[in-house]
Amino acid sequence: MEFDPATLRYNDQGLIPAIAQDAETGDVLMMAWMNAEAVAKTLATGRVTYWSRSRQAFWIKGETSGHVQELVEFRVDCDRDCVLVRINQTGAACHTYRRSCFYTSVQDGEEVEIMAPLNA
Amino acid sequence: MEFDPATLRYNDQGLIPAIAQDAETGDVLMMAWMNAEAVAKTLATGRVTYWSRSRQAFWIKGETSGHVQELVEFRVDCDRDCVLVRINQTGAACHTYRRSCFYTSVQDGEEVEIMAPLNA
Repeated sequence: MEFDPATLRYNDQGLIPAIAQDAETGDVLMMAWMNAEAVAKTLATGRVTYWSRSRQAFWIKGETSGHVQELVEFRVDCDRDCVLVRINQTGAACHTYRRSCFYTSVQDGEEVEIMAPLNA
Repeated sequence: MEFDPATLRYNDQGLIPAIAQDAETGDVLMMAWMNAEAVAKTLATGRVTYWSRSRQAFWIKGETSGHVQELVEFRVDCDRDCVLVRINQTGAACHTYRRSCFYTSVQDGEEVEIMAPLNA
C-alpha cells in the first residue's frame, strides 16, 4: 500500500510524536513532533525534519548545529498516531550536547545524570 | 535530587508521552501516555502503568493480557516532557500480538509489514 502522510492520526494541533532511535546502537535519542508536511519532507529528503512548536516552523534537525539526522528507516505504529525514525545521528541529538535527550535516570527515587555532554 | 513526578511537564490533559523500550534488545515497543499518578505507580510498583485515554482509567500494562512490562529503568528527557521506560516485556507489547507496535515500515513509498504476530 502506498504511504500517504495524510493517513496518520495527528493531534488537534496537527502534530504526531516522532521518536528518533539510533539505527546502529538502538539508543532512543529524542522525541519531537512532526506535522504531515514534516513527515513528507523527512521521507522525500532523507533528512529528519520536525515541526518546532516553539518556533512554529519546520525544524530540519542539524540545520544550524550540524547535528543532522539521516533517515535510515521510517516506521508507523499500529494506531498510526506515533512514528519511529531510525537514524544515523551526527554528534549530539540533544541541545545540551548530550548524545541523547534521555540522560536523566531515576534510581532509588533520585535523579541521576547518566550521560555527559559530548566534547564540542 | 529527589524525583517528583509533579515536576514533569504534562500536556493540557495532564499527560506525558512514555516510550517503552526493550531493555535487552533496544527495540522500541510502543508509545503510550502517563499522568503524574501513573508515573508514580510505575516507579512504586515496577509494573509499567499508563493512562488510557480511551478508557480514562489507569492501564496496568498486561493486567488482562498477561503481557506485562517490568520496569528496568525510568528516564526523563531534557525538557522533562517525555519519559522513556526501559523494560522487560512479556509477550507482545502490541494489541495486535506483535512484539512491537512499530511493525509497519515505509520503504520506497510503500507500507511494508515487517513483523508477524507472535503465536498465541
